[in-house]
Order: sequence, then C-alpha cells, then structure tokens
Amino acid sequence: MPRYALGIEYDGTPYQGWQRQTNGPSVQAALELAIADLAGGETRLTAAGRTDSGVHALGQVAHVDLPKAYADHAVRNAINARLRQEAIAILWAKRVDDWFNARFDARWRRYRYRMLTRAAPPAIERDRVWHVPRALDVAAMTAAAQPLHGHHDFSSFRAAECQAVTPMKTLDVLRVQRVGDEVHIEAKARSFLHHQVRNMVGTLKLVGEGRWQADDVAAALQAKDRAAAGPTAPACGLYFVEVGYDAPLAPG
Amino acid sequence: MPRYALGIEYDGTPYQGWQRQTNGPSVQAALELAIADLAGGETRLTAAGRTDSGVHALGQVAHVDLPKAYADHAVRNAINARLRQEAIAILWAKRVDDWFNARFDARWRRYRYRMLTRAAPPAIERDRVWHVPRALDVAAMTAAAQPLHGHHDFSSFRAAECQAVTPMKTLDVLRVQRVGDEVHIEAKARSFLHHQVRNMVGTLKLVGEGRWQADDVAAALQAKDRAAAGPTAPACGLYFVEVGYDAPLAPG
Repeated sequence: MPRYALGIEYDGTPYQGWQRQTNGPSVQAALELAIADLAGGETRLTAAGRTDSGVHALGQVAHVDLPKAYADHAVRNAINARLRQEAIAILWAKRVDDWFNARFDARWRRYRYRMLTRAAPPAIERDRVWHVPRALDVAAMTAAAQPLHGHHDFSSFRAAECQAVTPMKTLDVLRVQRVGDEVHIEAKARSFLHHQVRNMVGTLKLVGEGRWQADDVAAALQAKDRAAAGPTAPACGLYFVEVGYDAPLAPG
Repeated sequence: MPRYALGIEYDGTPYQGWQRQTNGPSVQAALELAIADLAGGETRLTAAGRTDSGVHALGQVAHVDLPKAYADHAVRNAINARLRQEAIAILWAKRVDDWFNARFDARWRRYRYRMLTRAAPPAIERDRVWHVPRALDVAAMTAAAQPLHGHHDFSSFRAAECQAVTPMKTLDVLRVQRVGDEVHIEAKARSFLHHQVRNMVGTLKLVGEGRWQADDVAAALQAKDRAAAGPTAPACGLYFVEVGYDAPLAPG
C-alpha cells in the first residue's frame, strides 16, 4: 500500500489533543474520518508527536497508507475538502517509502511557545497565546535558559504521567526572544518529555518576572524533582512547529 | 465630564460590525454595556471608524465621557474585566481634552489586508485572512498600486451604500508586501470610502493572479464606475490597524 507523509496544521482549541480519545474530539479522529473515503475504509495515522489538548500545530507530520497511489497534491486537496468543518488543514502530502515512520524516523522536533506580554488580554489571539500582563526580562530569561542546553536528566520538567523510558534528553535549542509585544521561546530536541516545554516555559517566566534568578533554574534542573521547578505553562501558547527527517519532506 | 480616548482591539468575526445594530451583536453595544457600570448608566462611544461585519481592529480608537476621573490604567482594567466574554480588549485608555473627538480629530487611518497564499486553507488563521490558494505576483501588484496613490475620484472602489459627501479621497500609502506565506496590503489615508480598501484589494488580486495588467487598474480608476473595478475582498482579511491624531495617544 502506498505510504504518504502529511504536513498538518491545526488549532488545538476545539480538540482533546492529537490522540484519539473516548471523551471528546481529537485531531487524529477527525483526520482519520476525513481520510476514510480516500483510504476506502478505516485507517490509522501515526504522528511525529502527540500534542496535548489545546496545543496547536504549524507543522505536525503523520503517515498513512492508502490503497492506491495518487498525486501528492491530489491527496492533500482531497483530505482538505473533507476537513472544512474542522480546524485542521493538510499543508502538503508526499509519497514516501513504505518503511518511512513519521514518529520513529523523526530526527528532531521544534516547538514555539508564545506569551503576550501586555496589560490588555488578547482579543484576536485568544486561545493562541499565554497572556502575561507585564513585561518580561528577556535577557534574564536567556541567561537562565543556558544551563538547560545539552544532555541532562530533565526530571524536574517532566509530567508525572510521562511514559518515556528515561528522563535523559538532549536539548539543542532553547531560545528566548521578543517579537513585538510577545515573548517567544523556541525549543528544539530529538524528543521531549511530556510537558517538558511547558514546564521549562513556566519556570523561565518566573525569571522574566524577577521572582527567580538564573541560578534558581540551574538548581531546579539539578534537583531532578518536578516540585523544584516552576508551574506548567498553559497549553494554548504552545505550537508544534516542525519535525526534521534525514531527507526534507516539506516542499519549498 | 472627564473624557477618555480608548485604544481597542477586536476580532470582528462574532460581530455585525462596529456600529450598534438591531439584528445582532455589535462591538459598540458590547463596549457600551461593559462601560455602563463605570459610567453610572447608559453611555455612548464615538469611534474613529465604523468597521463592517467581520472586519478586525488592532487599533480602533473611540472616546467616551465618564462621570468622574479615574487613572488611565484603572479605566482600561475596569472595562477589560467586563469584557471577558467578548472578543474585545481595551489596549489603553487616556484622559483627553473635553473637546477631543475620536472621529473628527483623526488625521489618518491605516488598514492592513492579509491574504494567505497557499494551497491549504488556514486552520489557525481561519476568519483572519483571505485564503487565496495560489501564489500572487507581488511585483505586479506593487506596480498596479502606483496609480491609485494621491488625490482621485475613487468612485470605482466605492460601495453603493457609501454615505460620503464626495468620492474624492487622497491615498497616502498603498503598499503590497510578502510576509512569509501571506501577502499584505497596507493602506493609509485621511479617510476612506465605504469598502474602498476591500475593493482595491479585490482589484489588485486580479493583477497578482495575472488576470489583469497594471494598466487595467489605472483604467478602472479612470472609469469612475464601480463595475469597472474588481470584486470586493472578504471582510475577514481586513484589519483597522491605527489612527493618527495631532498628538499621539497610544502609549509607548
């Protein structure tokens, strides 16, 4: 059966997350329904990352097998035509080798976290940013992010329900930058622990507010104890931006 | 009575436009209700521009009289606290002279129009961009925009229901630029005819698609006939970005 990789954008707000759930709509279930016609029946998608409820994606990648071969753009357009009622769009489709696996072949994953730092709550970007009603010290946050780079035991930033075999992860990028009246935190790694990005963001925000010093973040990492780090940032500010593979999949 | 100017952001999607309507929710009515407590009863807002149904604002300005004086930030926060169920936020409030008029004192108004130019429909920016499923020739659109600059009879870009006394307007800025996978058109003028920006955008899009040449836009302007220009671009892509006054009102 021909295998296709799909680049996927979604607004996480109306969904219980990527993964098929019994208690509410999921991105996976909506997509599998939209693909059913093309697939000639029930089908299963495998995604690079299982995003939580309310988390958005600008570049999720999944793979699916179809009973026959179609042109890449025809696959994209056929699925999009069946997604009109959903907050999901197929950015691209690409025929891949039969052994390609969107999850296990991923070399790195990139996330962005958006905080809107102004007194007024967001009217247009509601559910799409974390509203932080004060200025943040980006230089202090940048300094505090440095000790998190590299290979560490990230237990202090790991959700209790995390199913990873080990808390050891290698963080390649953790960049804090001001973008207009927002502060963005970009994180890139081969993979992340459950809630790792949101827990790092919630911790760095304490530094940005002046409630924590940079050293406190290094100490929190050393503690290897979730209670030692800051709170979990809300889902609505998080975007799954990009997945890297050995050969680029996304056109352009 | 102390007068305040308000900087206002809103998502136009759930509203019938700025102006109070009998047939549905309006931004004005929602704001006047939110301000009623502070104003000690019914109050009236006067805005710099009456946006249509579905049109967004990043920097609408309105003025309102309050029975007593409060600190600027207290006015902003008190109104925002009563806007939690609305897609409206007060960005800033500023005490102004009693004779300040948000509408008649405005020296210029700036709008932005956003087109998403890619095959996939918007999942996250739904209702916030015009989806144009093909690349646009920005250089050709820029060239076609040149003859629209300056003082002209803009009858070809005027809605039938426009109540302006004259079709003569002076267009100071009409800039086309690519921003990632979007094309933005910025327009600035002392004031605009009803639908003028959306009609100019709908016309320039024909050029971007190669269906019209730059000369066709100049000819449409000369015709002084609405039927000679292109279609009206949808409301969802339009943002009322900024209003200019003799003295700057917005902080920072």
